[in-house]
This record gives sequence, structure tokens and C-alpha cells, in this order.
Amino acid sequence: MRFIQIEIKLRPRPRGFHIITDEILQAIDLTEIKVGMLNIFLKHTSASLSINENCEREVRSDMENLFSDLCDEKPYFKHTYEGEDDMPAHAKSSLLGVSLNIPITEGRLNLGTWQGIYLGEHRENAGSRSIVLTASGI
Amino acid sequence: MRFIQIEIKLRPRPRGFHIITDEILQAIDLTEIKVGMLNIFLKHTSASLSINENCEREVRSDMENLFSDLCDEKPYFKHTYEGEDDMPAHAKSSLLGVSLNIPITEGRLNLGTWQGIYLGEHRENAGSRSIVLTASGI
Amino acid sequence: MRFIQIEIKLRPRPRGFHIITDEILQAIDLTEIKVGMLNIFLKHTSASLSINENCEREVRSDMENLFSDLCDEKPYFKHTYEGEDDMPAHAKSSLLGVSLNIPITEGRLNLGTWQGIYLGEHRENAGSRSIVLTASGI
Repeated sequence: MRFIQIEIKLRPRPRGFHIITDEILQAIDLTEIKVGMLNIFLKHTSASLSINENCEREVRSDMENLFSDLCDEKPYFKHTYEGEDDMPAHAKSSLLGVSLNIPITEGRLNLGTWQGIYLGEHRENAGSRSIVLTASGI
Repeated sequence: MRFIQIEIKLRPRPRGFHIITDEILQAIDLTEIKVGMLNIFLKHTSASLSINENCEREVRSDMENLFSDLCDEKPYFKHTYEGEDDMPAHAKSSLLGVSLNIPITEGRLNLGTWQGIYLGEHRENAGSRSIVLTASGI
Repeated sequence: MRFIQIEIKLRPRPRGFHIITDEILQAIDLTEIKVGMLNIFLKHTSASLSINENCEREVRSDMENLFSDLCDEKPYFKHTYEGEDDMPAHAKSSLLGVSLNIPITEGRLNLGTWQGIYLGEHRENAGSRSIVLTASGI
């Protein structure tokens, strides 16, 4: 039984959805885990993690437009002093989540062919983002 | 400490929400795990997994209507060449998620009385869907 | 390798979002886990768990208003005999989720500075809510 845990920082990114699969895989060595799980945990409340299509760039921009449509510029928002993008960013973070669990099989993430790991950056001018990676398995 | 992992295929289903609890339980033997976790991971970006009411059929059709209301036919979508249902399906997949974690207690899933496992099939004419089941525990 | 599991009941709360981080931490002793994961699982289909800002009260009331805006009073809902708040509560439960995974590091939850654990109570007059806590690690 192994438990491996590391904390990494992702470089600042513009608002929108970004594929971070390669950065995750470069940060942690899964090769000695035959069967297990990887948890990816984002330590922030105005960004998100999710899994979606790893190919077409328009999927990411359509996602950005849809989530902005659902959550931005609500006249009833009262938490506004940190900027117009702040409360929508909190909502998107809870809608999409900040914790992903992906199975490990024979030393590799067992993602589907079209699946990639998305960072949703929901602030306009965010700094770097911290992520905890925890792998467990045999 | 045990780690059990298998991959299964769910038969094709029509667009909508479907209860798959029994299929999951038939596919994996949890009886020797006293305390643990089951992860259910869907290897697709146009379907979803979630937990909801296991009884009334109208909950599933109301869910289908609500998620379609929130995500379908957005005039700003640009990723449209795979069909009108494709980009909404991606959005629903991230909104609902593709990875579930459920506790195992005394050899059984520790779900609430009214909880069932939902497959959200968000495409009109999808094929079978692959799921990885990973159980860990003692 | 340790696996600790307990089930707790949260006292009834009014409709809205509530921070329950302290109640979770008082219920389970993580001090002997150096590296691991905590799963928090809510055994209900009309409430939710998520992670969000642990400070400003207005974030929770804005969240309540946004999720009500997205899910309440849809004219197409047919599952209405349990009250007007019931079907929206089911939808919010799936949108936000009922299962959280948070890394454990050196005997503590490795949450970000501003992260707290939210119970989303989506019914008007709910009773107490049951939660299963499962910690694993070394």
C-alpha cells in the first residue's frame, strides 16, 4: 500500500478553462501503482477542477460562455466589493467542484480517450493556484 | 488492505437520467470490505454520474428538463459540428461530474434510503458507456 | 494503513448554505494520519455538500439566491406533490454533489485558507441530516 502526496503551484492563467493534464502527470510519478486512485484538490474558492473534452478549443470557450451566462451579473448579488467577477467565481467553483478522483491502472491515469483535466480560472486577474495531489494504491 | 478494480460497459441508453445502482452492485463484490470507499468513474465527456432519488420516475424526467433548460440551444455555442446535443452534453457532464465516491460499510454501499446512482446520458444516440469501479478498504 | 469511519447527524438547519467545517473536525480524529484522504458523504437527495468561502456571510446568501434562481419554480416540473421546494432541492443536490474528498496532511485537513465545508440545506423544513465520514491514510 502506497500513499504519495505532493503540493504544486500552477502558473497564473487568464480567465477561462485550461487543460492541465500534462502538468499534473509531470508532477507525480504513478508508475509504481498498479491499482489505485489519484485525488486532485484545488485549494481555492474562485477556481474549479473538472474533466472534459481534451481536443477542441471551442469546447473550452463555449464552457466559459455558458458558465458566465448562468452565474454572472446577477442583480441580487450582495458580495460585490471584491469585484464583479468574484461572487460568480465562487458560484462556479461550487458548481464544478475543486476535488477530482481519477482511477489509476497499471501506473497510469485511467482516463477515457477524450478526457482531459480542466482548470476553470474564474477570476480576471488571478495569481498562481495551489493543488494537492494524493495518490493511493497497491 | 484491499484494492479491487474492474471496468464494465453499460448498455446504450436513450437521452435522460437512468438509475444504474443494481448494475454497479452486480459488477463488483464488496462483501469482504468492512470499511472502505467505492469510486465509480465514467470515461466519457458527454454523459455524467450523480446521486439522486431512487424512486419516482418524474424526478428523472424533471432533471432532464431542467438541465436541458440550463444548457441547451445557447446562441453563442460554437462547438456545433458534432450535433446540437453535443456541447450541451459536455456542459452537463462537467456540471454533474463523472466520478462518484461512496462509502462502503460492512460489505455494502452506505447509501441513504432514497439514494440511487444516476447515469445522465446527455447524447441523443450514444453507444455503450465505460465505467471503472475501484473499491478500497479493509 | 488506517481506515476510520463514523456516521454523524447534523442538527436541523434552515434552508440555505451553512459552514460545517468545525462539526466535521470535532467528529473525527485525524491526528494520527500523516498522509491520507477524508471523504464526507451526505446520505440525502435534497441537500448538498460543497466547498466555498469560509468568511463572508453574504457569499452564502448570494449562493442561495443564485441556486434558487437556476432551479426553482420551473413550470415544467411534474414532481410537485412533496412541495414546491422538493424538486429544486433534488436538482441542487446533483448540481453541487453529496460527496467531498479532502486531502489530509500531517494530521489535518489540507484546505486552503479561505475554504470551508458547506452544507446546502435545500428544503424549507428539513430534519437532521446524516453524514458518513471515512478517513484513510498512513
